[in-house]
Amino acid sequence: MKIALFGAGRIGKVHAIAIAQNSRAELACIVDPHGPSAQALANQYAVPVMDEAQALNDPSIDAVLIGSSTDQHARQIIAAASAKKAIFCEKPIDLDIQRVRDVLDHLNAHPVPFMLGFNRRFDPNFMAMKAQIAAGAIGQVEMVTILSRDPGLPPLDYIKVSGGLFRDMMIHDFDMARFLVGEEFVEVTAMGSVQVDPAVGTAGDVDTAVATLKTASGTLVSISNSRRATYGYDQRIEVHGSQGMLQAENVRESTVILSNADGVRLEKPMHFFLERYEQAYANEIDAFVRLVRDGDTSAPNATDGLKALELAELALKAS
Amino acid sequence: MKIALFGAGRIGKVHAIAIAQNSRAELACIVDPHGPSAQALANQYAVPVMDEAQALNDPSIDAVLIGSSTDQHARQIIAAASAKKAIFCEKPIDLDIQRVRDVLDHLNAHPVPFMLGFNRRFDPNFMAMKAQIAAGAIGQVEMVTILSRDPGLPPLDYIKVSGGLFRDMMIHDFDMARFLVGEEFVEVTAMGSVQVDPAVGTAGDVDTAVATLKTASGTLVSISNSRRATYGYDQRIEVHGSQGMLQAENVRESTVILSNADGVRLEKPMHFFLERYEQAYANEIDAFVRLVRDGDTSAPNATDGLKALELAELALKAS
Amino acid sequence: MKIALFGAGRIGKVHAIAIAQNSRAELACIVDPHGPSAQALANQYAVPVMDEAQALNDPSIDAVLIGSSTDQHARQIIAAASAKKAIFCEKPIDLDIQRVRDVLDHLNAHPVPFMLGFNRRFDPNFMAMKAQIAAGAIGQVEMVTILSRDPGLPPLDYIKVSGGLFRDMMIHDFDMARFLVGEEFVEVTAMGSVQVDPAVGTAGDVDTAVATLKTASGTLVSISNSRRATYGYDQRIEVHGSQGMLQAENVRESTVILSNADGVRLEKPMHFFLERYEQAYANEIDAFVRLVRDGDTSAPNATDGLKALELAELALKAS
Amino acid sequence: MKIALFGAGRIGKVHAIAIAQNSRAELACIVDPHGPSAQALANQYAVPVMDEAQALNDPSIDAVLIGSSTDQHARQIIAAASAKKAIFCEKPIDLDIQRVRDVLDHLNAHPVPFMLGFNRRFDPNFMAMKAQIAAGAIGQVEMVTILSRDPGLPPLDYIKVSGGLFRDMMIHDFDMARFLVGEEFVEVTAMGSVQVDPAVGTAGDVDTAVATLKTASGTLVSISNSRRATYGYDQRIEVHGSQGMLQAENVRESTVILSNADGVRLEKPMHFFLERYEQAYANEIDAFVRLVRDGDTSAPNATDGLKALELAELALKAS
Repeated sequence: MKIALFGAGRIGKVHAIAIAQNSRAELACIVDPHGPSAQALANQYAVPVMDEAQALNDPSIDAVLIGSSTDQHARQIIAAASAKKAIFCEKPIDLDIQRVRDVLDHLNAHPVPFMLGFNRRFDPNFMAMKAQIAAGAIGQVEMVTILSRDPGLPPLDYIKVSGGLFRDMMIHDFDMARFLVGEEFVEVTAMGSVQVDPAVGTAGDVDTAVATLKTASGTLVSISNSRRATYGYDQRIEVHGSQGMLQAENVRESTVILSNADGVRLEKPMHFFLERYEQAYANEIDAFVRLVRDGDTSAPNATDGLKALELAELALKAS
Repeated sequence: MKIALFGAGRIGKVHAIAIAQNSRAELACIVDPHGPSAQALANQYAVPVMDEAQALNDPSIDAVLIGSSTDQHARQIIAAASAKKAIFCEKPIDLDIQRVRDVLDHLNAHPVPFMLGFNRRFDPNFMAMKAQIAAGAIGQVEMVTILSRDPGLPPLDYIKVSGGLFRDMMIHDFDMARFLVGEEFVEVTAMGSVQVDPAVGTAGDVDTAVATLKTASGTLVSISNSRRATYGYDQRIEVHGSQGMLQAENVRESTVILSNADGVRLEKPMHFFLERYEQAYANEIDAFVRLVRDGDTSAPNATDGLKALELAELALKAS
Repeated sequence: MKIALFGAGRIGKVHAIAIAQNSRAELACIVDPHGPSAQALANQYAVPVMDEAQALNDPSIDAVLIGSSTDQHARQIIAAASAKKAIFCEKPIDLDIQRVRDVLDHLNAHPVPFMLGFNRRFDPNFMAMKAQIAAGAIGQVEMVTILSRDPGLPPLDYIKVSGGLFRDMMIHDFDMARFLVGEEFVEVTAMGSVQVDPAVGTAGDVDTAVATLKTASGTLVSISNSRRATYGYDQRIEVHGSQGMLQAENVRESTVILSNADGVRLEKPMHFFLERYEQAYANEIDAFVRLVRDGDTSAPNATDGLKALELAELALKAS
Repeated sequence: MKIALFGAGRIGKVHAIAIAQNSRAELACIVDPHGPSAQALANQYAVPVMDEAQALNDPSIDAVLIGSSTDQHARQIIAAASAKKAIFCEKPIDLDIQRVRDVLDHLNAHPVPFMLGFNRRFDPNFMAMKAQIAAGAIGQVEMVTILSRDPGLPPLDYIKVSGGLFRDMMIHDFDMARFLVGEEFVEVTAMGSVQVDPAVGTAGDVDTAVATLKTASGTLVSISNSRRATYGYDQRIEVHGSQGMLQAENVRESTVILSNADGVRLEKPMHFFLERYEQAYANEIDAFVRLVRDGDTSAPNATDGLKALELAELALKAS
């Protein structure tokens, strides 16, 4: 299965590695308006640089992986669907919810295999958690607690175009909530505050936030986010059910423990998403291949993207 | 310091042990309208049974510890303050907030040393956490997460007179939030649901709930409660700050770990409050002695009781 | 049950607390050749100071607890047995194995309830481990690993009269090995070295050592000791069996965990034996009361003391 | 760097994956006397099958990776060195120590880059431990404890030709001891027993063993092995030094923890060496490339193989 990679930036490189390591996938070309980046990545994998039209018109190419900047996603999805290519798109489809709905309409009119890159669903630990829930290990799910903190504030320029914490960061947690609970949410409250850097507030955003969700049957989800944790990337989930509780802990840099006069020191959690979710990115490409080749539709789709964004909108409004 | 114990029930017995073990305190008598209970406990500690009036009129008695049923607290506080006895009262002062305000007025008019039994403040782990916060170990406190679950639903008859989950159970967590954050809260949201037993809902209460609090400076607190955890008494707190994070974990029944074909099994958390907070109850009496004898006013007072109840009222209303 | 306490030093004080807290035991008097120490401890518990003869001749006294210096143990045991007092003796009976055998002969001729203070058998964690072994949780015991390290080198003057690491320190581990395995050892090897302080070597002792034991049926035990661990008192045991493994971990000063840029810091193990084994000392007195009053002979006896010393002798010889 | 792979069995396949994933290495051909196995693996990587002579005479081939059966190692090393190929050989060089010495003589006479596959040196956790020791995190190393248990007894036919537990299994631990301590051992004691299966004893081997090593400067190492652990592959190391202690814990199948009425269950350690050391095998090939291409001689060499075997011989003799 030949995949054109749209986007030669940080996330594009991550996907290039995952495609190269997947025995059923093959990198076909690199597409990026920034020529030197495209060429460098293309050279590394000995594939050609193409422009969008070339890639979409090349009949040997089966699929596109959209890892470009967010403002290009919707347009590229529409173009790729029109060209009958299977599509893997990094989240989000778009920051504007009406635009997302338009994309879904287009996909309905031009059906192609479509997968949205909610990478955390493919983390081995969260997958194991989900499998245990599905196996009934904790009975009925009653309350989910999601703690998610980034190692540090992104550049202010990024924050300004990010759509804000709820749409940019907490959206991953909204998706995890839906993934783990398996029932839609009917109530949303949220509170946010600026505690990391006043400049975030000046930019109209928050850097710390809590949201609470509730399903019709009464399952509660509590999500808390911070843009900065001094100890690294904090990604923990806890699910409490009628028969027990599941916790997915952080992955540490190593298992080594140092005991001395200062205490007993475990290694920090892996630094950020590239380290923590390395295996998730590989699993994600595998899921995309299974979607396209085997018709396995368990991967997150465009509707999942819309639903998560709807929750972000509700949280933002409530906060 | 001679202490009259009001209440010979479960919590009364806990306090009797703590008084007996404290080298600066002495059990003076047992007061309980249920004669056989009073007599049995009195026999165990070789002290007399008295009625309320006897105890309050006995000039050799310095203090009363009120561990009677909740509906007696307010009246007994008022009587003891009028009799110029120092007072330790189990939480809550009363379930009715106006009645609590009346008690505070009476205490203002009849000032005596007064301590409210928010036992968790005296848990060695939470004390260590508070000490580290005070020492600046994590910088500014930004977000507190409190997870609190009971091992099982109390009898429905108890629930009906308890004042409901927010006033009866989460009130401990509201107090911990105030204790750890050290700043009053200006916003409260909450959601509750009935997931453990429909009979709780029929009784007009919830058995599962989440509340979110916010201070004027933006510190966020997330509290989640369940009336039932199959694995025992779950009492964990996590405090995230500008320089790091503190977590106070559960205390296990022992440190023994069993590894076999089923996995790696740690012991469960201690079963319930009598086991988990055994040391806290001893520390609490020590704090009461320090309040009365040394003038150390760091113990929780009547205003702390009022403030926690106010938060419970706000959460209940928001839910 | 009235107990005369022989020895008003550090360990004597520990036992005084445990006796005072035990509802079935009563401290009768303090016996110590150092008058001011005896008087101070006696004042604290409002009991008289006596000399040995007074205590042994007092018909109201049921038992003696020998917590004096090691060189007094054998003589005091013999005197107390002759006076028909029940005896609790701190380990060791004596550092000279022939002298220990003489004491056992005397006890055989003058039978009284006798308990040796191998306190670790009464640690709640090791008790839980032993109970799980007995319940068959790990099937047949195949290999035991005992790691035991003190927080710091004792004074050189102590080391010189201690009998050396194997008789003074590792003897606790030999007893634990016997306690957990329940079968005598037929082979012993050992290696020792001086790594903490060359002065220990000059004094004819080692400060670091490993011993290996084997029973007739093939169960292996590995013991390692160091006189100094910078992180506190290290007392861990691991038992591997045909159906699984049990580990008893250290007890930490609190459950609080600090995560920051330096890593994830757990609290240190409790500092030394007074802290770590506080509950064990209370349990020990309880076992002594059960031995004397209820005839429960499960407590370690004089033969256990001899057997542990024999293993120490074999290890010393092999090293 | 083109590598001929000798051996298409289980370990050969592991190395084929690692070579394929390494950007500086290339699989050149498969060599295995068992034709179908060779062809299947060759097909998977689209490389030719060759016989030994072809591979050694092919000037485009830079190196051979010997993953054949143990009895072929020595002969193939000698042939490859004569052909001036760089050599990576799975441990051991040979089970016969004189034969190993002959191979070293040949390598001295025909010097080529040579690396021995002591894979555990390349486990990220043990590497982190070694790096911390080197950085002085625990001061002087005083005592090393190595616990190493396989998930289950290998087939009896394997045991019979394995050279026995000390040469086949504990040899990895002897190498780790040398790797971590950095000083040769001058004393060795050991005890072994048959506890897992009497048939092992009938075959002249043991299935459970403990060894103790000592360096001239007094550093002690304790190693314990079992051929069977019901909970999976147990690979832990603890290093105690003058300034602290380092522990490398097992790697669990996931971070998920289940708490319920039975306790708190962590996942088991990864099942066996293929799972646990997956990253180590990748790192190992990387080290081989660095040895051949960059002259980085930090990888384990033939002398390391000899030294570990000498310790195994001493332990076997002592047991």
